[in-house]
This record gives sequence, structure tokens and C-alpha cells, in this order.
Amino acid sequence: MKELPTYQSLVNSFSKLPGIGVKSAERMAYAVLQMKEEDALSFATAIQKAKSDIHKCPVCGLYEEGGSCEVCDDETREKNTLVVVSFSKDALAFEKCGYRGQYHVLGGSLSPTKGIGSDQLDIDKLLSRVENGGFEEVILATNPTLEGETTALYIAKLLEKFPVNVTRLAYGLPMGASLDYADSLTLGKALEGRKKI
Amino acid sequence: MKELPTYQSLVNSFSKLPGIGVKSAERMAYAVLQMKEEDALSFATAIQKAKSDIHKCPVCGLYEEGGSCEVCDDETREKNTLVVVSFSKDALAFEKCGYRGQYHVLGGSLSPTKGIGSDQLDIDKLLSRVENGGFEEVILATNPTLEGETTALYIAKLLEKFPVNVTRLAYGLPMGASLDYADSLTLGKALEGRKKI
Repeated sequence: MKELPTYQSLVNSFSKLPGIGVKSAERMAYAVLQMKEEDALSFATAIQKAKSDIHKCPVCGLYEEGGSCEVCDDETREKNTLVVVSFSKDALAFEKCGYRGQYHVLGGSLSPTKGIGSDQLDIDKLLSRVENGGFEEVILATNPTLEGETTALYIAKLLEKFPVNVTRLAYGLPMGASLDYADSLTLGKALEGRKKI
Repeated sequence: MKELPTYQSLVNSFSKLPGIGVKSAERMAYAVLQMKEEDALSFATAIQKAKSDIHKCPVCGLYEEGGSCEVCDDETREKNTLVVVSFSKDALAFEKCGYRGQYHVLGGSLSPTKGIGSDQLDIDKLLSRVENGGFEEVILATNPTLEGETTALYIAKLLEKFPVNVTRLAYGLPMGASLDYADSLTLGKALEGRKKI
């Protein structure tokens, strides 16, 4: 089995996925061999279709299928709030918590170590959207990491010239967390942002 | 993104793999979206080819590609030893430790709870191979579990009528293990099978 070229190339493909080592890739490739013909076929088709049918919305950068963005083209959504995220998948989390405004996907965060500068992110498009778009508030929802923070501060600076409220998500304890396990940075932020009850 | 049907069917396909929950499946599907076109294409092709080009060897049951079994058709391998395994992938472990004899794949283990009886395993084919094949030794290498043990004992009984040595793998401590962590069943087997040095 080790010398089957097709099996090896399948293992190789699986091991390119995030968090998948050779051992897991082998287990998955083996599972494909044991799959029903139709399941394997629909798996292969889904991968091909994902690449051919799913594209980034030219306006907001979210992934869309069939040429219509489910956010930009939805007339029932609020038009005055814009959440700025690093990746398309981050928007999913906002959808789950009930957010019904607009999005802008940057395509990453500023990172000198990974060689990602401002020109690699969709910042120009964001600026022209804000300039033209009638937004009242821009919520900078990059990750609470060094890179995400830097990106948010950089963009906040660029947005200063527009008459729009620029906000950042609140920091604090995650719901359901235990104080014992909270890191001191998070706890510090939670203390700093404490509210009267 | 949650409403993209192609994305959802890709998530669905990934979540059919062993040990992959919805969250991991989503991460993988997202990685496919971000893959290079050619990588995604070769991934899809590998899945299709795995199903169309890889088949079970009609003699030993190992997966083979291109109509030639790398074990059965290899004239340099020993013809007098037969390792009986539950699954094709188990043979890989033997290859890695330098075994150069023949294999027979049962296709599973006897399991009343999973409804796998002797008629679902390739036992008849094994018996006729042993009857015709000139094997000196049959090594029953099913897993050291209740099901694997049962299967080995069942097959050993059936092989009694042939002039062949039937053996089972040794039990004991795995190499590199720590005694603290050895379960008592394994330690008991290791003690039972102790050897003079």
C-alpha cells in the first residue's frame, strides 16, 4: 500500500490541510478507500465546485456562490454599520450572534514577520466604501492579538478623516470562563473595562 | 457563508472522515477555499482516482493499484509465511518492521455487537490458500482486543486440520513505554511471557 501512487498523493493532499499531520492524513486517505463510491464522488465534486463556484464578493470580500453576495445583496440588512474582519470565516461568528449589518473582509492582518503589509490587505477598498457608503459606525473586529491590534490601530488612523464612529470590540472574560484560568492580560482588560451594575 | 450550498456539502464530506467533527470539517473546507487552484484540483482528482484505480487484490485482499499486487506479484518475497490481518493498513506496520512474507486481509474482526460474522470475513479464501499454498507458518495478527482475539482463536481452530504452524504475536510492554503507564493487563501479559536474558 505504501507504494500506491494515488494513495500517496491523496495522503499528500490531506496533509496540506491545517492541523493535519501525516498520520491523520493516512487515516483519512484510508477512509476514502473504504467510502461508498457515491460519497467519494460527491466529496471530489464538492472540492472542485468549491474552487469553481465560490468567489469573493467584489464589494465586501465575503465568499459568495452563484454571483450574489448574501450580505451585500440582502436589502433587509442594516446599511449603516460595517464590521471589519480579517477573514471571511470571522463574519460567521457575527452572523451567529445576530449581527445584521455589513462586512468588510481585509484578507488578513498586518504582520511584518509574515511579510504582510498594508498593500496586501483590502484597505483601499474599505476607505472608499466608508467615503461613499453612508456608514455611521465602523467596528474593527480583527483578532485580539498583536497583529490584529496593530491592524485595527492602523485602520482607525486612516479612518480619522471620515465622519464615522470607529469602535473596537470589548475585551474581558469570555462567558462561562473560570477566573482561575483567565490569563492576567485578559483579567487586566476585564478589570479596566468594568461596569457598574 | 453559512448559506453557500457547495461549502456546506464540502463540510459535510469532511465530517464523514474518522475523528473529524463539524468544527474541524469547517476549518478544512475553509482551507480548501484558500488553496491554490492546482492543489484543490489534484486533491479532487486523488479522491476520484483512489476510488477508480485502487482495488483489493483478489488473492490477498491488500489494496493494489494498476492491477498488480505489490506483495503477491513480488517474486523476491518469502512464500512460506502468511500474516493474517484484519485490514489492509495493518500490513503497512509489518512492512515497516521488515516483514517480507505474504499477507491475507480478513476485512475486519468477528464482532457480534457490530453484526460481523464469519461469513463477512475472507476466511474461506484464507483456508483455501493455506490448503494449496505451501505455507509453513500462519501468523494471526488481528488486534490484541476482545474482537481480534476471538477472530484469531476462531481461525486457529479452523486451521488445525492443515499441517501448518499457527502463531500469534507476542504480548508485552511496548518499546519505549514507561512502567508507570502500563495497564495491568499488558503488564500481566509481559510478566507471563518473560524471557531469560
